[in-house]
Amino acid sequence: MVQPTGSSLDPRDRALFTDRYELAMLQGYYESGHTPTATFSLYFRKLPPDRGYAIAAGLEQVIDYVESLAFDDQALEYLAEEGFDADFLSYLDGFEFTGEIRALPEGTLVFPNEPLLEVTAPIHEAQLFETFVLNQVGFQTLVATKGARMADVVRRRGDSQDLVDFGSRRAHGTDAGLTAARAAYIGGFDGTSNMLAGERYGIPTYGTMAHSWVQSFESERASFAAFADVYGDDAIYLVDTYDTVTGAERAVAVAADRDVDLGGVRLDSGDLTELSKQVREIVDDASIVVSSSVDEFFLREFFDDDGVASAFGPGTALTTSADAPNSGVVYKLTAVERDGTLAPSMKLSPGKVTYPGQKALHRVERDGQYQYDILARRDEALEAGEPQLEPIFEDGSLVYTPPELATIRQRASRELETLPERCRRVTDPNPYEFRISDGLEAVTQQTERSIRDREL
Amino acid sequence: MVQPTGSSLDPRDRALFTDRYELAMLQGYYESGHTPTATFSLYFRKLPPDRGYAIAAGLEQVIDYVESLAFDDQALEYLAEEGFDADFLSYLDGFEFTGEIRALPEGTLVFPNEPLLEVTAPIHEAQLFETFVLNQVGFQTLVATKGARMADVVRRRGDSQDLVDFGSRRAHGTDAGLTAARAAYIGGFDGTSNMLAGERYGIPTYGTMAHSWVQSFESERASFAAFADVYGDDAIYLVDTYDTVTGAERAVAVAADRDVDLGGVRLDSGDLTELSKQVREIVDDASIVVSSSVDEFFLREFFDDDGVASAFGPGTALTTSADAPNSGVVYKLTAVERDGTLAPSMKLSPGKVTYPGQKALHRVERDGQYQYDILARRDEALEAGEPQLEPIFEDGSLVYTPPELATIRQRASRELETLPERCRRVTDPNPYEFRISDGLEAVTQQTERSIRDREL
Repeated sequence: MVQPTGSSLDPRDRALFTDRYELAMLQGYYESGHTPTATFSLYFRKLPPDRGYAIAAGLEQVIDYVESLAFDDQALEYLAEEGFDADFLSYLDGFEFTGEIRALPEGTLVFPNEPLLEVTAPIHEAQLFETFVLNQVGFQTLVATKGARMADVVRRRGDSQDLVDFGSRRAHGTDAGLTAARAAYIGGFDGTSNMLAGERYGIPTYGTMAHSWVQSFESERASFAAFADVYGDDAIYLVDTYDTVTGAERAVAVAADRDVDLGGVRLDSGDLTELSKQVREIVDDASIVVSSSVDEFFLREFFDDDGVASAFGPGTALTTSADAPNSGVVYKLTAVERDGTLAPSMKLSPGKVTYPGQKALHRVERDGQYQYDILARRDEALEAGEPQLEPIFEDGSLVYTPPELATIRQRASRELETLPERCRRVTDPNPYEFRISDGLEAVTQQTERSIRDREL
Repeated sequence: MVQPTGSSLDPRDRALFTDRYELAMLQGYYESGHTPTATFSLYFRKLPPDRGYAIAAGLEQVIDYVESLAFDDQALEYLAEEGFDADFLSYLDGFEFTGEIRALPEGTLVFPNEPLLEVTAPIHEAQLFETFVLNQVGFQTLVATKGARMADVVRRRGDSQDLVDFGSRRAHGTDAGLTAARAAYIGGFDGTSNMLAGERYGIPTYGTMAHSWVQSFESERASFAAFADVYGDDAIYLVDTYDTVTGAERAVAVAADRDVDLGGVRLDSGDLTELSKQVREIVDDASIVVSSSVDEFFLREFFDDDGVASAFGPGTALTTSADAPNSGVVYKLTAVERDGTLAPSMKLSPGKVTYPGQKALHRVERDGQYQYDILARRDEALEAGEPQLEPIFEDGSLVYTPPELATIRQRASRELETLPERCRRVTDPNPYEFRISDGLEAVTQQTERSIRDREL
């Protein structure tokens, strides 16, 4: 039974999950009667270290947020205490999104400067979303990407091993525990240990036993026997509590003694590659689950050194994206209404320049391989490649049916296979080719020039 | 109006926020009739890189979890579909915690191997909590520590500048956004930009304006004028959209033109230290808020180079604990009932050894400075120092009144002042002295010996 897949934040709390400056600006826009239509774009300035690509994720939580956003009496009362004006609060009381959202579907490859999300709406509506959408899309995209990196190593080097998210305990809070399981699944993982993620998203759940199980019995052997009595052929025994090789031998002996198949063993410490080979000799064709410090770099070495495993359980590295815990995505104003038309806009802050205007993004594929992307003005007639941004909301109404999670996962897998292998390397990947259309190049230069003339 | 400060996860979802192996073990304990009393300890094996201390946080969310934990019909139905047995599910239906919890109060210094939390209960009750308590205490302790490191630099080197959490957008999900604001406040921050954290925890909220405000008007000057008209003396102007120095001059001119005080300016890009000095000459005694890439290392250099600021707004570095995104805390079985008494227990996995048994922790202070900690057996009569662990639950009942957040924050500040400065360095801190009592040393050796005799 799959549950609604929105944010784990109670709907009544979503409206206040925003930075004070968003509300300060909203009040400013409202009180000064300055509410032009504006376009905001959510994108990576650059990819995190060692990443040659990212996998878009988190759109479904954004959709649910936009659909459910409302300020209730308690929220309005709090804002009144915090000094916001009564007139403005009556406006918030009836807040409703009336604009347009276009987005990259979840599971799609994304590269720097490409819009994950483009919101066009009266400026105060689009502004309010900033904090939440960065929070959700940034984190899920980070973990989908981290998961895809591991899945890609397993696909290319491994033997169809299962990848299971074991990292809820290390995730930053409960929402991260849940959405990391979802994002990792999108990236190519096979399951999660988190039962709530299993219930909410319909992701397969996996689990073995902990050291505490083993320690709680009078001996390791007795603990394995008790587990075999409950779980029979399915039991997977954690064998490193005292000594991994001895533990594996005991698991074999117990299964024989109880007359059940040896489901498998889990290794959680020591030189996992070396131990996996020793243990394979002992456990015959039973499963070997490898956990503790698993990430894409570990997996690459594990396969280089002929390690043997049936499944991996990455934890910390996955759910905190440990080597790159910040996506760095930004949500920037790229166009604003002037004299009735949407005029391109940008800032000039050092190192923080933005391509102005509404965008089109085309991806060019040839012979089953992506060749390059072109970022263009939305109104340009591009012939090359396939347009990537899809309409999500129009005139405030949802016009998009979010795909099943399994469909998103298939898309991500297909996307990765279509990306040249040199761009998928775990370290020092080649940059994927990114082009700016002549039209966008021209409008960027023109916008920058006119700002320099006006402001500097 | 302060709200209940529990986890942001809906109470009905808390029971399922657990790893599948916890429930698999629970079912195993239940079905094999093996439910000895056990003690689990939550502790750091070692501190994250560059940390000389950590600040305990997250206990209040654990209390709320333990008090509210219940499996509802929908959760039980899901577990039945996932293959759990009807008998076991009837047990879960009436799940209730009957044990004891002792803990370090929030805001207390904590060092490796010291229990943040010690749970003693029938083993299945204590086991179920593992995933949630690691998730909450691990993350909040990480952020309270990161926040304290920044607050400590400001206290020692700065001029009472305010520190404000600007990092909700970069946090890993909504729960992390909220609890990071709470934990940073405990660590010594003065406020947050997150309105929901403001409402829920009673933390002061702060906010200025974004670049989009500036870009949305026909000129920077017009945007400042509109903001001045709404916010008067309180307006803080973001001045780096086009050029920081020019922006600061415009802010001064607009305030004069509108006949309001210049509340302040915010700098968000470029060489912040250098710009802060130039801007101070322009804005006289108005506030200077410095954001973008602020962390303890930045702050140390900023003060070294005579930067000038009234407030700082750290974001990413704070809410993701970017240089150390994983606390590495673990939750391990340290004792288990044998023949009616609680016997010390440990595992021998390489690099993952645990001090066995229930603990006492004493902290020794002399002349207003902490000298060393002693970790001992709970039943030892220690004379030196003050005991640190407080009773939280007894016989399943809450016996602790969580302090106000402001009280916790004061405790953390006092704790930090009492820790020798050499242990508080931002890089290469001296390790704080940690002693093991003779009794604990003896029981550790004895337990290890008896396990080796039995298992190897």
